[in-house]
Amino acid sequence: MKSGNSLPIGIFDSGIGGLTVVQQVRRILPGEDLIYLGDTARVPYGTKSPETVVRFACEDAQFLANEGVKAIVVACNTASAWALAAMERSFSVPVFGVILPGVRLALQKTRNHRIGVIGTNATIRSQAYTKGLHARNDEARVFARACPLLVPLVEEGWLSHAVTDSVLHVYLDPLLTRRIDTLVLGCTHYPLLKPAMRKVVGKGVALIDSAESCAHFVRDRLETIGLLAARRRRPSFIKPFLTDETLRFEELAGRFLDFPMEPAQKVNLPSFSTR
Amino acid sequence: MKSGNSLPIGIFDSGIGGLTVVQQVRRILPGEDLIYLGDTARVPYGTKSPETVVRFACEDAQFLANEGVKAIVVACNTASAWALAAMERSFSVPVFGVILPGVRLALQKTRNHRIGVIGTNATIRSQAYTKGLHARNDEARVFARACPLLVPLVEEGWLSHAVTDSVLHVYLDPLLTRRIDTLVLGCTHYPLLKPAMRKVVGKGVALIDSAESCAHFVRDRLETIGLLAARRRRPSFIKPFLTDETLRFEELAGRFLDFPMEPAQKVNLPSFSTR
Repeated sequence: MKSGNSLPIGIFDSGIGGLTVVQQVRRILPGEDLIYLGDTARVPYGTKSPETVVRFACEDAQFLANEGVKAIVVACNTASAWALAAMERSFSVPVFGVILPGVRLALQKTRNHRIGVIGTNATIRSQAYTKGLHARNDEARVFARACPLLVPLVEEGWLSHAVTDSVLHVYLDPLLTRRIDTLVLGCTHYPLLKPAMRKVVGKGVALIDSAESCAHFVRDRLETIGLLAARRRRPSFIKPFLTDETLRFEELAGRFLDFPMEPAQKVNLPSFSTR
Repeated sequence: MKSGNSLPIGIFDSGIGGLTVVQQVRRILPGEDLIYLGDTARVPYGTKSPETVVRFACEDAQFLANEGVKAIVVACNTASAWALAAMERSFSVPVFGVILPGVRLALQKTRNHRIGVIGTNATIRSQAYTKGLHARNDEARVFARACPLLVPLVEEGWLSHAVTDSVLHVYLDPLLTRRIDTLVLGCTHYPLLKPAMRKVVGKGVALIDSAESCAHFVRDRLETIGLLAARRRRPSFIKPFLTDETLRFEELAGRFLDFPMEPAQKVNLPSFSTR
């Protein structure tokens, strides 16, 4: 057993949406220590340009690498869409994104090969899901839609609200018209809207939660490369770090997690230069 | 006539909302050269902590100071609310915010001294408007409400949309119940929602556009301190700088301005240390 196995897994997101991934990783890999970084001073990434997203993501990953993690999970669809290749080139530990797991699960679930994808402006513009789906199934018809209001609605806490239902109809009705049977939630905030989305799309559409599929994917990969943590006596920990003050984190984290977390620490990120 | 008068005015915002101020300054001070900085890589400020807003605002102001401006206009309510004092201490040129002009105009307009204030989470939490109104009129009753969904709605372009009307009702109806006769639009994005707001609040409520009141305030102050530009032969210029790639700027600026602007340049901000 390598000593690397007992190192924590690093997970980062542009803000706090990545806590949906933390929630699932904790559920599926309860024995792993986790270090979470939320770049709350610069959130969101989904409205920013690819160049800026790559720079921010590499700085986030550098912070986690400096903390001595055994693997990096990019719990942010925008950063996964634009920056995964750059991070894979730049860091020696394995880097896992949320796109590929979502793509694989969507292709398992779909029956009619008509798949909807929703996400931030930047994620949709990247066409990362569309390309990933087509690369694995050339029959797939992909209908993608940017939904920039959904993150603010989640952060406002309007998870069950007439306004949210109306917004979801505006965004999702055109996808339903295209007879999708599977919808990829391509943003880590969106799982919180699953009940509201279910009302809009009905029972016939599979909702692919990228947080959940990502956690399963990470477990499989860590197992394959022999990096799963050994059973240990002490309880595993989750250490949160944020780039902004931690006030709103304490308030918002409760919406994403059904277990308590230690208080977050504020950090400055190391600057990153492409190698 | 001092040579300083012919220097440009610097205007900054967390993103592109400050273009509503540019629009009004250009209208009211057509002879002034303007340099605009939008910190689009880190937008928005309204969800960030005071400490982070102060740091970002001082870096923005430092950039403009390095460009040799004769005055700095903080076209961002959140930065005005939290960082104006720090900037006044740190820079030798005059610094004008949007809060005080809005406060003064609201007190001129109100008849019943019942004033509503809407803005981002950070602006409302600062209580900058409430304190400013009370400092100048101890009869004033102030009813403040954070409206975090309005900026995303403007950026989505839903200026005239049933969803926007519903959101405005949720935010504004409680203020109308308090019988306000004046509503301060405490965010530079909000003037774009004036027609939608007018439908919700009716004719009896004065809408205070902080962009417009700020432009009048800047003209008055520059006149008082003898810094207005002399009449010049060449047309005045507006130079936009952004911290993110300029793609979305070109697309969005048209919503805010009724005149064309030169292409934006991407810049890195100087680091700032409190003096």
